[in-house]
Amino acid sequence: MKWFKGSIQVESSGKGLYLITDQISQVLNSLAAQEGMCYLFIPHTSASLVINESYDPSARLDLENFLEHLVPEGESWHRHTMEGRDDSPSHMRAILTHTSLSIPVDKGVLSLGTWQGVYLFEHRVRARSRNVLIRYLEVD
Amino acid sequence: MKWFKGSIQVESSGKGLYLITDQISQVLNSLAAQEGMCYLFIPHTSASLVINESYDPSARLDLENFLEHLVPEGESWHRHTMEGRDDSPSHMRAILTHTSLSIPVDKGVLSLGTWQGVYLFEHRVRARSRNVLIRYLEVD
Amino acid sequence: MKWFKGSIQVESSGKGLYLITDQISQVLNSLAAQEGMCYLFIPHTSASLVINESYDPSARLDLENFLEHLVPEGESWHRHTMEGRDDSPSHMRAILTHTSLSIPVDKGVLSLGTWQGVYLFEHRVRARSRNVLIRYLEVD
Repeated sequence: MKWFKGSIQVESSGKGLYLITDQISQVLNSLAAQEGMCYLFIPHTSASLVINESYDPSARLDLENFLEHLVPEGESWHRHTMEGRDDSPSHMRAILTHTSLSIPVDKGVLSLGTWQGVYLFEHRVRARSRNVLIRYLEVD
Repeated sequence: MKWFKGSIQVESSGKGLYLITDQISQVLNSLAAQEGMCYLFIPHTSASLVINESYDPSARLDLENFLEHLVPEGESWHRHTMEGRDDSPSHMRAILTHTSLSIPVDKGVLSLGTWQGVYLFEHRVRARSRNVLIRYLEVD
Repeated sequence: MKWFKGSIQVESSGKGLYLITDQISQVLNSLAAQEGMCYLFIPHTSASLVINESYDPSARLDLENFLEHLVPEGESWHRHTMEGRDDSPSHMRAILTHTSLSIPVDKGVLSLGTWQGVYLFEHRVRARSRNVLIRYLEVD
């Protein structure tokens, strides 16, 4: 068993899904990973992780619009609004999606399905620099 | 530490929750698992994983109806509709539930609570054959 | 590699977010943990886990109110109501949040972001005693 500790940086330009599959794969390549588990963890409260369809751009657009509809901004009962209308909704959208993901690695690659990609989901309006922690347990 | 790599196949007959606890347990039994972590990963973008109440069938029915109400089909702003009205909503329902789960194993069995079961949640209308990846890290 | 198996007890006084970061940290301290992965699993179907903002109490309040608005109680189509109006909604709120979380540990502490805390989310009205399973894989 071997253990690797790393991270990637994602420069978000505001709300939306940012595909990070390639950045994660590059980390695994640099380690000459063979087989094991890849753990992703996002240390932010207004951005999150999701795995979903990465082939058709319209699917990504619908997912982005979906969270806007599901978690409206500017509700009268919102109290946590010091940083703007998108402040509290960004936390709500984060808890509905994912802070941690565990993905099997086979023959050095993430065991994603044909249509799957790993995304960082930015929930704030302003551009931000985001961090994703990567841990890799090699079992070979 | 030992490592096991497997998968199970689930034949879905369309939308709904499919209990897969027994199939996973059978895999663990066949390995003579003792203690460790069981990782589940679903390599699909329109089906997902959830752990919830598996005793009363009415709880399952309510969860199924819940996602229908929470994520309506046929919204005017949906763009990703080439495969039908259930296409985009199936991705939305998938990101609100789970792609990966990590379950402790004790004395060879999943450490589920009394009322918990592991489900594959099929979000497409048509019957499909689905795959769930199982990784098991034995620590004994 | 070393493996640790433990749990914490959380006395909930009804619906709401209960910060459990310190209880988990105490377990890691007692183990003299250095580096590895911490796995959390909640064996309940009407309580769940989330990681989110733990600095401003108004953020917590908004998240609590959010699930009340997103998953209304007393819908005409609810069938699983034997234990009350909050029964079925508690399962719905649980599947939208998390049953399992995997958090990297560095230098003995959870690799949480500055504003992140780990919460148990109680979805039932009545006070309950809840259990969270902790597994820790030390890789040093």
